[in-house]
Order: sequence, then C-alpha cells, then structure tokens
Amino acid sequence: MADSLTQVRPGGRSAKVRAAVHRAVAELLAEEEAETLTLPAVAARAGVHPTTLYRRWGSTAQLLNDVATSRFTDDLVVPDSGSLVGDLQRWLAEVATDVADPDTLALMRATIGSGPAGGCACVEDRHRQLGAIIRREQDRGGTALDVETAADFLLGPLYYRAIFTPEPASADWARTLVSTYLATLRTP
Amino acid sequence: MADSLTQVRPGGRSAKVRAAVHRAVAELLAEEEAETLTLPAVAARAGVHPTTLYRRWGSTAQLLNDVATSRFTDDLVVPDSGSLVGDLQRWLAEVATDVADPDTLALMRATIGSGPAGGCACVEDRHRQLGAIIRREQDRGGTALDVETAADFLLGPLYYRAIFTPEPASADWARTLVSTYLATLRTP
Repeated sequence: MADSLTQVRPGGRSAKVRAAVHRAVAELLAEEEAETLTLPAVAARAGVHPTTLYRRWGSTAQLLNDVATSRFTDDLVVPDSGSLVGDLQRWLAEVATDVADPDTLALMRATIGSGPAGGCACVEDRHRQLGAIIRREQDRGGTALDVETAADFLLGPLYYRAIFTPEPASADWARTLVSTYLATLRTP
Repeated sequence: MADSLTQVRPGGRSAKVRAAVHRAVAELLAEEEAETLTLPAVAARAGVHPTTLYRRWGSTAQLLNDVATSRFTDDLVVPDSGSLVGDLQRWLAEVATDVADPDTLALMRATIGSGPAGGCACVEDRHRQLGAIIRREQDRGGTALDVETAADFLLGPLYYRAIFTPEPASADWARTLVSTYLATLRTP
C-alpha cells in the first residue's frame, strides 16, 4: 500500500518510485526513438514492477504528461530587471536556451506525440510566467499586454523553430524577438 | 520484385501498396493513441506483409515522415489575389483550416513524436508556398520580405496554437495575424 495514490508522502517510497520512473523516461528518451518508450520498458529501466506504472499512470501519454509538467514547472525564476523589455528578454532568452537542449527537445517531441494534451503540458508554466511578467509591468504603471497575444508572438516563433525547423532559436534571437514584438505595440 | 524500390511504376503494385499503407496510417491515427502505431499494426491494417514495410520504410519514423511529406505537399494552391496582403490572408486562412482538422493534427503530433525530422516534414512545403507568395510580390515591384522571418511571425503563432494550446487557430484569426504582421513592417 505504500505507493498507493492515497498515501503519498514527500520523500517516501511513492516519491522515490516517481523519481526513478521520471529518470528512466529521461534516459530512454536520450537513447532511443520515442516509439520504443513503453511502460514495460520504463519499468525495467527504473527497476519498478510494470503493474506499479500501469496503476499509477495508466498509459505512456499520462506518464509523459506528468514528466513534462514536472520538468517544465518552476524551473525558471521570473526575472525582475526593473523594465518590461528587460524582464521579457531575460526570461525568453532562458526559455530559448532550455528549449534548444537536445534532451528537452526529445521530451517535448515525445510528449506532443503521445496525445492532444501533450503540448499543453510543455508550456502551461511558460504562460503563467509570462502572465506574472505582464502583471508586474502593470503594477509599475506600464502597458497592459494581453497574455495570449504576447504568447503568440514570443513563444510561437520560438517553439515553432524548435519543433518544426532543423535549428532551434538561440538566446540572442529570443532577445531580438522581444524588441521586435514590443516595437509592434507602438504601431498606430 | 514488383514492389522493389528500383521498379516503382505509377499506378503499379508499388504505388498501390504505398496508398494502402498511407491510408492505414491515417485510419489508425484517427482511432488510437500514437503509441500503438507500429509497423506490424500498419501492415495488418493495410493487408500488406510486415516485411514489405520494414524493407521499404525501415521504421515508424520514416513511414510517418513519408506520409506527412505526401500529405502536406502541393495540397494548397498558392493564391494570386493581386496584392501581398490578399495572397497571405487567403493562404494562411487555408493553412489554419487545414491545421485545425483533428486528423491533420493527429498526423502532425505523431510525426513530431517520431523523431527530430518529423516537424520539418509537416511544414517544408508551407515554407516553399510562402516563398512563392513573397517572390510574386517582388515581381510586382513590392516589398522584399525575408521568408524565414515571415514564417516565424505567420506560421509560428499558428502552429504554436495548434500543438501547444487546447484551441487551434481559426481562419479569421489567421487573417488578423497577417494584418498585424504587415503593420510591423511599417514600423520605423
């Protein structure tokens, strides 16, 4: 019963199993094509009984969503540089560096491939971070940006390059993207 | 020998096998999670011996790339409305409508999940179409746009919404995106 979902204790057996399984997913993705990522393969690598994985995650898609949500949550501190352009440039440059990492890209691709909810799990926290940056600028008395539109023009090109082109975006490119986007707001 | 790669005749046995296999992939993607898409499963659905698929495509990733390349090639006619804004709006609205189709999305997700080249197979022809629209505007004596930058700002937000958010972009939204993008070019 120690790994039942109703008895999760931080640092307990359940947390250890989760950590071992998440690590196994990362290792397998770094080695192989996504098509070989099955729950039995992850269980074997993690040294956990397959039944535990089926009971806890149900499917590869749900496991990948869990790994992606955990991987892409709270790993970026929202910067406070004193200005909107500074905050956005520092944040988007960090997102670009993260997304250009081959292991990150492999996890994103596999998660997207696992089902309709996969892509959302990769970027939900990015939208929250962008929202926090935009709210802080409003608190300073600055421009009130729409979070969804800002995501379209900042995260859109960046994730498009990572997933749909041979070359992910660089941190420098991300900073230029922020300047270009903010310039459009001054268009009459 | 009839289906050997060296003896491909249009309309011959090789073309029939390819059509049956492509159809089987589309059917399986419409029904199931991508994780169940294996070469034996596709072979069974297409009524083709699995050996034929392994010999011809080698892996699920290569088969999905072939299906995506064929699916996303030449299916959109590049419009000639007489103006850049008109051409881009008609084209991007068609891309948006196509990408919002659940079967298209399922194929895109599976192809992205199958490996690094997957995303590129989905959009290579879109870049060519965008290039053709931009060259035609230059021939008219109009603005010389950079194809990659235009792709970042037009295809970027559109594919980002489709893959990373719960709601794909609509044709109306795509037309607005074109107007917003062209307005940025008039920024000093």
